[in-house]
Amino acid sequence: MEKMKLALLYADFKSDIDIIEKELIQALNSSSHMLNEASVHLVQAGGKRIRPVFVLLCAKFGQYDIHRLKHVATPLELVHMASLVHDDVIDDSNMRRGQYTVKAQWNNRVAMYTGDFIFARALQSLAHIENPLVHQVLAHTMVELCNGEVIQIEDKFQLNQNLKTYFRRIKRKTALLIESSCYMGALAAGVNKKDAIHLKRFGYFIGMSFQIIDDILDFTATDKELGKPAGSDLLNGNITLPVILMQHDRRIHEYVEKIQAGVLTEAERQNMLTLVRNSPAIDEAQRVSELYLQKALREIDQLPKHPMKRKLRDIAMFISKRDF
Amino acid sequence: MEKMKLALLYADFKSDIDIIEKELIQALNSSSHMLNEASVHLVQAGGKRIRPVFVLLCAKFGQYDIHRLKHVATPLELVHMASLVHDDVIDDSNMRRGQYTVKAQWNNRVAMYTGDFIFARALQSLAHIENPLVHQVLAHTMVELCNGEVIQIEDKFQLNQNLKTYFRRIKRKTALLIESSCYMGALAAGVNKKDAIHLKRFGYFIGMSFQIIDDILDFTATDKELGKPAGSDLLNGNITLPVILMQHDRRIHEYVEKIQAGVLTEAERQNMLTLVRNSPAIDEAQRVSELYLQKALREIDQLPKHPMKRKLRDIAMFISKRDF
Repeated sequence: MEKMKLALLYADFKSDIDIIEKELIQALNSSSHMLNEASVHLVQAGGKRIRPVFVLLCAKFGQYDIHRLKHVATPLELVHMASLVHDDVIDDSNMRRGQYTVKAQWNNRVAMYTGDFIFARALQSLAHIENPLVHQVLAHTMVELCNGEVIQIEDKFQLNQNLKTYFRRIKRKTALLIESSCYMGALAAGVNKKDAIHLKRFGYFIGMSFQIIDDILDFTATDKELGKPAGSDLLNGNITLPVILMQHDRRIHEYVEKIQAGVLTEAERQNMLTLVRNSPAIDEAQRVSELYLQKALREIDQLPKHPMKRKLRDIAMFISKRDF
Repeated sequence: MEKMKLALLYADFKSDIDIIEKELIQALNSSSHMLNEASVHLVQAGGKRIRPVFVLLCAKFGQYDIHRLKHVATPLELVHMASLVHDDVIDDSNMRRGQYTVKAQWNNRVAMYTGDFIFARALQSLAHIENPLVHQVLAHTMVELCNGEVIQIEDKFQLNQNLKTYFRRIKRKTALLIESSCYMGALAAGVNKKDAIHLKRFGYFIGMSFQIIDDILDFTATDKELGKPAGSDLLNGNITLPVILMQHDRRIHEYVEKIQAGVLTEAERQNMLTLVRNSPAIDEAQRVSELYLQKALREIDQLPKHPMKRKLRDIAMFISKRDF
């Protein structure tokens, strides 16, 4: 049901998303054969293009010009891609969305420079936009992304972290970039300040909800649906909401110790997944995500009457209800 | 002699360089303890701050406002620092021939995000500048820097590369960022188009000269002067001008094969250094650097009469004659 609505939503924007897709391909073109292969591979791997879609949706509340907006949507998707490439170096991930990562196909060095190259391309695209506020928003988001990544390294395997630590981490890791997609889309379309702030806050809340669902799915979805082993977050030492909500359970501590010692067997991974999946922590985490969804919907309510409000609601509902 | 002139030159700009130094420290401040330590260390390590000095010098040909210019000089120095941090990751992993120890991996991960963080801070500082051309110039330079880095990986240990390959690589690796320092300084100060182009070209030529001298010094200076083993470039597989000019010598091929196989002894490194130092290739490389210096000086000649012309000449001469 929700999936159908999303398909309809994307259908409305299909020709504009195609323009952005072309921009992405063009942006990743390089004179280095190795960079070219590594990058083109990334575009082809696809993705939901959620950040560009939010840019376009939010820009509809102002003066919508795709040839201006593409220079906001493309950089945001590129920054997202670059951060994934650098993430894979860190997590030592060989698979993402069922495809080999840049790091796995080449090596960490190439992955590092591929990420740098994509960041630089993002700036090149954004350089078409004159509004300094737009530049400030993206730069701030990138600073916080890096802070988030380093804090994630510092927090690895820390089972006894509190919820505040987790929320601050996913804010930096995910929510800020979605917030910025909404806000920069609004700014680039000249949306009035009040509405731009509602759209910004909407993006923040939906970004939080999105990441919590992502963290739940990492346990509840199958290896095939994820395109990587279920439980990867925990296997990499990243303590997410379901696990934090199970802190009282001795068994989860034992699994984490085994992971950290590098001695967890495949059978134990399966048992660990069963433990988490059957724990009330999954439902609790889902309720937290739902709270953020409600906050996001309340921001939409405060926007003036506009046909796009319904679309924003649809995408928000889809993101928070998705099961893959 | 030249060093004295340089000291005088820096003395003229001392209070303004102090302002930039403060901006650098502020820019590298982070909420992550680990990022803070890694970054502060970098500022304290110092450096000649050549890029900021070029920004300031070239801006003197227009309307000089340090509180505007600091948002050009700081990002350029930060981009330079970030690229050094990422370079170190690469060269470190090379010495280990792709094998990471756990400790090295931890350091490399932190180094990667430290670099990303510094890049992001550069953009945050630059976001104060409204002129889109300034953003385009830096973004283009960053793209080419990455291209250069990846091509350097592709060209590693390729002893039979031609001069064109080498020049294109050092252009991307060094000359473009110095060119951009001069050009962006001029643009930010509203220097007229014709003079801005002369300053830009001056920056390019002096950047080429600078890198060639750097590549010579890597062989001719002592380990102590360099702060790393002499011959490091070649030990890391980077084929530079002196080595390219020795292509006909069988002995250099033998050393490179040993380096690549990881079997070069310390005694052999010393013999290799003696071989290169006594080769006519050093003088030839110096002559190439001198040609670029002359081209740089000719660009200065074409600028209108201005007290700063002399200073530009001084710094150009210093850079191309330096022996450390």
